[in-house]
Amino acid sequence: MSNLHAHTLHAHQSHTGWDNSLPPVAEVNPGDTLTLETLDASGGQLRADSSVRDVLTLDFGRVNPVTGPVRVLGAEPGDALAVKLLEFRPSGWGWTANIPGFGLLAEDFPDAHLKTWRFEGETAAFADGITVPLKAFPGTIGVAPAEPGQHSVVPPRACGGNLDIRDLAAGTTLYLPVQVDGALFSLGDTHAAQGDGEVCGTAIESPMAVTVRFDLVKGANLRAPQFETPAPVTRHLDDKGYFVTTGVGPDLMQAAKDAVRAMIDYLGKTYGLSPEDAYLLCSVACDLRISEIVDQPNWVVSFYLPRKLFS
Amino acid sequence: MSNLHAHTLHAHQSHTGWDNSLPPVAEVNPGDTLTLETLDASGGQLRADSSVRDVLTLDFGRVNPVTGPVRVLGAEPGDALAVKLLEFRPSGWGWTANIPGFGLLAEDFPDAHLKTWRFEGETAAFADGITVPLKAFPGTIGVAPAEPGQHSVVPPRACGGNLDIRDLAAGTTLYLPVQVDGALFSLGDTHAAQGDGEVCGTAIESPMAVTVRFDLVKGANLRAPQFETPAPVTRHLDDKGYFVTTGVGPDLMQAAKDAVRAMIDYLGKTYGLSPEDAYLLCSVACDLRISEIVDQPNWVVSFYLPRKLFS
Repeated sequence: MSNLHAHTLHAHQSHTGWDNSLPPVAEVNPGDTLTLETLDASGGQLRADSSVRDVLTLDFGRVNPVTGPVRVLGAEPGDALAVKLLEFRPSGWGWTANIPGFGLLAEDFPDAHLKTWRFEGETAAFADGITVPLKAFPGTIGVAPAEPGQHSVVPPRACGGNLDIRDLAAGTTLYLPVQVDGALFSLGDTHAAQGDGEVCGTAIESPMAVTVRFDLVKGANLRAPQFETPAPVTRHLDDKGYFVTTGVGPDLMQAAKDAVRAMIDYLGKTYGLSPEDAYLLCSVACDLRISEIVDQPNWVVSFYLPRKLFS
Repeated sequence: MSNLHAHTLHAHQSHTGWDNSLPPVAEVNPGDTLTLETLDASGGQLRADSSVRDVLTLDFGRVNPVTGPVRVLGAEPGDALAVKLLEFRPSGWGWTANIPGFGLLAEDFPDAHLKTWRFEGETAAFADGITVPLKAFPGTIGVAPAEPGQHSVVPPRACGGNLDIRDLAAGTTLYLPVQVDGALFSLGDTHAAQGDGEVCGTAIESPMAVTVRFDLVKGANLRAPQFETPAPVTRHLDDKGYFVTTGVGPDLMQAAKDAVRAMIDYLGKTYGLSPEDAYLLCSVACDLRISEIVDQPNWVVSFYLPRKLFS
């Protein structure tokens, strides 16, 4: 029996596909606050003591569960659902993996690789002398699509979902285009840290509890999510500046791959990291930016490594 | 008569195409410092009192002049030329234009548009209540390609050129892959400010004098430029956080266009800017980032507007 007026949703109140026929597990009014507990992106299959063998036996039918759906009373197609991310209560552990077939450089990294993390406070140790600043956010946050049927939870859509935008951190307000009555909001795939791009396909995947406040912007008619941050977004990691690689060419995807490959080379030569470890570190801590997209026919994608990682 | 051992190169010592047969206008040793004066990207055709008519009559054979080439003694193919950007001496004026046929949204903006700027200090006024933080850098900086003949100065290449990387600011060291003996370095297209992406195709185009120091990293064998910043790169503009639009879909280029179009709509609705003015403001002050590039088949490109622009 679900309690539609609960203030906390538990991690088992989840689903693994967007579907506007799923019954809501909670109902809220605009202005209401709700806490959503989440499973990690493996749906509880990986733990702090898991090994790489557990990556190979993952049941993909259980991955990326999202807690919800939450019906927001009064929400109608054309509105924006404003979700203010108030607080993240961390679990203190997480994992980052290369999952064969997934990730920007899937062709370079055919083998599974796993790093598990335990942390307290604002950073997590990656290796001796390498520390990653933490900043929690939900990798997946969205509302149900208008189109009937079940839709994979993997790709993000105009109505949100697996956006993996690392600046959806505490204090930020996300505006999601509502496509069905009641919005049917869900959230999960929480990350303790991620770089822009999430290049290996996973972040510091970490279960946590997320408290949000809902509001509506009537008739906003957004075509895609928008958000507003109240404060700078990189000050937890930018103190010491950056080392940056680039990819230059006529295809943004290829340029991004080139920039990431150059960074993996650099991390190997400079810090002795294996390619697999470097790839995972890139995913949780380095940022892909489009430096120029107008100087035909070649674009520049840059990949920013915060020097603060290294003590 | 050129003075190969000058400490300052003047703006007329320039060329408008990469060609490894061009005679050097100066020779330096590793460790030497040199000041390069530049013309603006119009090659002196636009001025602080120009009107939009002057954009329509631009002679494109004269655009994007770069000062140089500078021969760096001892530089050989396979080396990296390290260029430390020591100082920028601004001219106090600049221009930003939509040039028909050029820019990310060329199909939306068929008509020429021009904004001229005068500034002192660390910001430039765009309009009443809208101010752009300045950060000077060379839009074009590179070395001669190995391939003989003249190569357009418009596209960037593996050996640099029109990179338009806005973080090549004072204090940064750029590493350029040397392709010919002596490197044959040139620099120009100086910008007083630009956002990541340079979406309308121009920045705050502004002539200035740039002082650099050259060094060599023998046998670096870089495939593309790399750089190192000694300090944070966004603190001049991030105090108040960001408003962010997104584009979600299977093509990074289309996602970038969608994000920029959404920002232009937002700037019109929220601040009353015309689409043309909003497009120019996006180009000089907003940043394109790749939020995720792994959640097949859809990627997320985000476009960051610093709230600090607005008083």
